[in-house]
Amino acid sequence: MLTDIAISRAATLQPIGAIAAAAGIPPQAVEPYGHHKAKIDLAALPAPVAQGKLILVTAINPTPAGEGKSTTSVGLADALNRTGRKTMLALREPSLGPCFGTKGGATGGGYAQVVPMEDINLHFTGDFHAITSAHNLLAAMIDNHVHWGNALDIDVRRIVWRRVLDMNDRALRDIAQSLGGPANGYPRESGFDITVASEVMAILCLASDLHDLEARLGRIVVAYTRGKQPVTARDLKADGAMAVLLAQAVKPNLVQTLEGTPAFVHGGPFANIAHGCNSVIATRAALGLADYVVTEAGFGADLGAEKFFDIKCRQAGLKPAAAVIVATVRALKMNGGVAKADLGAPDAEAVRRGGVNLARHIENVRAFGVPVVVAINRFDGDTPEEVAVIHEIAGAQGCEAVLCSHWAEGGAGAVELAEKVAALADAPSQFAPLYADDLSLFDKITTVATRIYRAEEAVAEPSVLAQLARFEAAGFGHLPVCMAKTQYSFSTDPAKLGAPTGHVVPVREVRLSAGAGFVVAICGEIMTMPGLPRVPAAEGIRFGAGGEIEGLF
Amino acid sequence: MLTDIAISRAATLQPIGAIAAAAGIPPQAVEPYGHHKAKIDLAALPAPVAQGKLILVTAINPTPAGEGKSTTSVGLADALNRTGRKTMLALREPSLGPCFGTKGGATGGGYAQVVPMEDINLHFTGDFHAITSAHNLLAAMIDNHVHWGNALDIDVRRIVWRRVLDMNDRALRDIAQSLGGPANGYPRESGFDITVASEVMAILCLASDLHDLEARLGRIVVAYTRGKQPVTARDLKADGAMAVLLAQAVKPNLVQTLEGTPAFVHGGPFANIAHGCNSVIATRAALGLADYVVTEAGFGADLGAEKFFDIKCRQAGLKPAAAVIVATVRALKMNGGVAKADLGAPDAEAVRRGGVNLARHIENVRAFGVPVVVAINRFDGDTPEEVAVIHEIAGAQGCEAVLCSHWAEGGAGAVELAEKVAALADAPSQFAPLYADDLSLFDKITTVATRIYRAEEAVAEPSVLAQLARFEAAGFGHLPVCMAKTQYSFSTDPAKLGAPTGHVVPVREVRLSAGAGFVVAICGEIMTMPGLPRVPAAEGIRFGAGGEIEGLF
Repeated sequence: MLTDIAISRAATLQPIGAIAAAAGIPPQAVEPYGHHKAKIDLAALPAPVAQGKLILVTAINPTPAGEGKSTTSVGLADALNRTGRKTMLALREPSLGPCFGTKGGATGGGYAQVVPMEDINLHFTGDFHAITSAHNLLAAMIDNHVHWGNALDIDVRRIVWRRVLDMNDRALRDIAQSLGGPANGYPRESGFDITVASEVMAILCLASDLHDLEARLGRIVVAYTRGKQPVTARDLKADGAMAVLLAQAVKPNLVQTLEGTPAFVHGGPFANIAHGCNSVIATRAALGLADYVVTEAGFGADLGAEKFFDIKCRQAGLKPAAAVIVATVRALKMNGGVAKADLGAPDAEAVRRGGVNLARHIENVRAFGVPVVVAINRFDGDTPEEVAVIHEIAGAQGCEAVLCSHWAEGGAGAVELAEKVAALADAPSQFAPLYADDLSLFDKITTVATRIYRAEEAVAEPSVLAQLARFEAAGFGHLPVCMAKTQYSFSTDPAKLGAPTGHVVPVREVRLSAGAGFVVAICGEIMTMPGLPRVPAAEGIRFGAGGEIEGLF
Repeated sequence: MLTDIAISRAATLQPIGAIAAAAGIPPQAVEPYGHHKAKIDLAALPAPVAQGKLILVTAINPTPAGEGKSTTSVGLADALNRTGRKTMLALREPSLGPCFGTKGGATGGGYAQVVPMEDINLHFTGDFHAITSAHNLLAAMIDNHVHWGNALDIDVRRIVWRRVLDMNDRALRDIAQSLGGPANGYPRESGFDITVASEVMAILCLASDLHDLEARLGRIVVAYTRGKQPVTARDLKADGAMAVLLAQAVKPNLVQTLEGTPAFVHGGPFANIAHGCNSVIATRAALGLADYVVTEAGFGADLGAEKFFDIKCRQAGLKPAAAVIVATVRALKMNGGVAKADLGAPDAEAVRRGGVNLARHIENVRAFGVPVVVAINRFDGDTPEEVAVIHEIAGAQGCEAVLCSHWAEGGAGAVELAEKVAALADAPSQFAPLYADDLSLFDKITTVATRIYRAEEAVAEPSVLAQLARFEAAGFGHLPVCMAKTQYSFSTDPAKLGAPTGHVVPVREVRLSAGAGFVVAICGEIMTMPGLPRVPAAEGIRFGAGGEIEGLF
């Protein structure tokens, strides 16, 4: 088997105009970026011709063994097309910074990839850079406002808007800024997050159009006055310029899979302090063009699917028709207590022990009224006995599981999965979010903690409860909650694999994302600016003698 | 007369493929970015078909009255094409940050513009963002190296590589970073510059190709060891990844003027701490495609033209054939002591007093062996008497001056200028840089100070001289010098307009730009991170009701 990058390079890509045409996108809506990427001008699209079925690909809790959510999304979409169903992908854009740390890109793998992978991973069409610019313009305008007299009476101790860079750079997590004398402003503490953690990213992904984008940008709360009143981006008159900076970024990016399936790859917010889904704009555009749209959500179903349903689908009025939960033998073994070094040894009993994780995710997704298929993403070395255990676990839930080999075979390896998914998606959907808008914010947190995480309860210090009460008093009580916790466990302890019970979810801090339209509940240590490892991937990235990029993946 | 933006919007642009074809660029070399911008893949260009004449557009010392260097470059190129001469432009890219402060873009004005102006000013093809990423990756790798054990023995007090953002943000000029505990690294002082001040920008603009770019990146000196030995980007193994990040940025961007003249707009380094010219790659590509190539340099001829000749042309082996010095009645009046508020009143004597500035620039440019024409960029309200004085001043130097109206009339308003320029450019050229490579660094500084700035001498503290000696001992004595001083005066005092004499040039600090290939001599206060004004332009930038961008210019 060739490496991902070798497969990607060996592929003959179709001109992006041909991909667009096949998807029903007229030439005047296609703004090419090179020969194999394009921005789509939605204003130039005809009225929707399709009422696509939305299919979510989610997963068990992630482990270092790898699950293959993006790979499965691509394989499934290719297989749906192969079986005569007009299908598009709506995926997230990868972040640049982590490519230079430890991980490669996020464009699938094997024969189930979106391409051109180097372009998508490096700068792509500039969306994240535009978000960085818009975010940091707002930051500069805050300090500038204070510098020139602070007419809004901003409490410089209560500026909550940090800066961002699309870079893994621990040195910027905590800084003292505006040093060096009066010409540089009022010294204060602040710091940088990685761009995917920006509320501007979440806003871009939840906005319904450019107009809504600007309105949401205006609602961003950047600081509080000495009287604890919120100060917004609109108060600073930054919203218009931010929207102008995002005018191109808000247009979905069209690329293709190795098999020529059209794919919108657009937006990529964190799945902890944000909702972890691709843009509403791209998802809706795809639903208007194709009969089936395959999308994915970040991390495992406890974080990603819950937010997809409770934040994205709620805000955008989307009705998911079916969900795929990706599981692997290896990852279930790790959930069953096997160390990564020992994954090579067949151990069906470990798969069974770890299978409680899968079973709970199946129950949870169904609690939203969404039917589920389990995709077993096959790895070399999986034994028939191990695979049979997964079928058994799914069967015990009355749920189908399908062994897939799209990584090795492309869409041909996911045809059975496609048939099962399409059958479910074609049936009437019963989707409903988990909780009502009018529940109190802490009750929403408790609902997610007890019904999805299966905790005994959620707990919070009085100061956190008081902050929630202030958000409610300020008119933000109707917002959904965005849980920020470890992705490795249903609980807030990353070491508790499988299906832990009896745990408590401590809410350490809550933050208002008024523009994105959610309240973030931070449960445990959440890293919003990664660092580089001892030997960063960047050290091995360079142009080879033949001009090809080495070391990126 | 319509505003610049209204003229730009009313224009019917040709598809960029048609512009490329007319310029002799084959379709396979054209990587479109939307319909009216493209990156040109030089590897797909045929062998050069032309041996173009290189024409530099420079100016008298800038004043708040405006001179119109970019406007004149565009008008001249359009006029050369109108008169049957195959001509291309090679201009600088504007910086994003200042668009949100006080100034608009840098794409010319009136009927002499490169378009699409909004795109060029906002993100364009992402070059500056790529430079920001490459620069900041190196910064992150420095701190990461120290964090993980500092095998290279970097003296954290002597890290000279700051970070950059393309933003006017005074709060980032001086920061304390890596605060917050051991996980965030070793606390130290640092700060951010604006992206155009990055050495990576200067490198991109001086590199001859991607291979040379990577080699130059590797030579960047980022810090010194406790033993005062330089530590380079190559020592940190950052050069390869930085080059990969710049793979698209290094390709020239093709756009068009309002009259359809093809224009490479590529690279834009500061003209104080860097050399202030567009990329060598774009200039050379244009010279291989067209018979005449019009380019420009930053600020007035004392800074811009000197560096164009002594740094860019020296390094790239370019032979400029002619130079245009742009002057205006209004700017000469200001050089003659008239306040901006009083510019409306006719005052030929003030033009004469200020004319000493023009006369000296003519002498200086000719000292490089390059013939000169003066372009009088006409403004409404200029009187015939005032214009006559400029003709007289030029005539006294044996130099032609031409009244131009390209701002109001496009290329038709610069036909006479084009004829004069072409006549000079078609004659054999005598170009030579001002000083030899083997002169000592301080003698180079003194040569520029006395022969171009007409100072009595250059002076420096012993510590500065010792630093120059260390650079020479380390093998950097052959580099040209890059003077960083105020653009408003021949001297280092921005208030000394006209043609000051008897002044002294104090060299406060010297810095090595080993990758770019020059030694920066800082003479006076140089701002490398601008701030926003009391009322930033950003406050007025937004989408209008019709969807057009308001307030950008």
